[in-house]
Amino acid sequence: MAQQMMELDGVFQALTDPTRRAVIGQLGKGPASIGELAAPFDMALPSFMKHIRSLENTGWITTEKVGRVRTCELRPEQFSVIEDWLTENRRLWEGRTDRLEQFVRKQHIRPTQHHDQEDHA
Amino acid sequence: MAQQMMELDGVFQALTDPTRRAVIGQLGKGPASIGELAAPFDMALPSFMKHIRSLENTGWITTEKVGRVRTCELRPEQFSVIEDWLTENRRLWEGRTDRLEQFVRKQHIRPTQHHDQEDHA
Repeated sequence: MAQQMMELDGVFQALTDPTRRAVIGQLGKGPASIGELAAPFDMALPSFMKHIRSLENTGWITTEKVGRVRTCELRPEQFSVIEDWLTENRRLWEGRTDRLEQFVRKQHIRPTQHHDQEDHA
Repeated sequence: MAQQMMELDGVFQALTDPTRRAVIGQLGKGPASIGELAAPFDMALPSFMKHIRSLENTGWITTEKVGRVRTCELRPEQFSVIEDWLTENRRLWEGRTDRLEQFVRKQHIRPTQHHDQEDHA
């Protein structure tokens, strides 16, 4: 449980920065080297590498060095981690608005019905 | 554009903490007072209020004080902000795996076909 919580902290933490989100978008198109990924950014390499390490530590990417080239690959499993959170929290919210809708509908229907056998369920 | 980027930074930033995620889950069931929301947590009120302000600043909740009681309400629009990001990035990834699947299928079919008019498109 605590492990899952920490994982979720990290999965979201990685997405709080536009550079890291852009790298995830780029890697969605296929694996790429650090050089290719860094090219669009006006950023010193050590700063860029911090973002790469953050993505690696939070499970968003894997990296592999062959010779002098380090290649990064996306781990799309993390999309599902976010989707699960979203689905669970939306379900709570939609359950609530369903109940609200039922309540409003009941209030609206009530005056036209007989009140003798009102449903208290 | 820069505005949208900053909004996205904040929407995800709010989700990097388990207390804030729990408050979002709780408010999914309906509006609640600060006292009700703070009750399950073993946390000093000033620390808890920092989380509430963070959720308010990043657009996840609105708060309203009536008399001595401040009530919080969820802004479910932020679910859509996350869903849009997820959909866009999954689309890139799925486009890529579709292309990969086509490539693998082509490679697999190739040996049984005539090679004279191979498709280089």
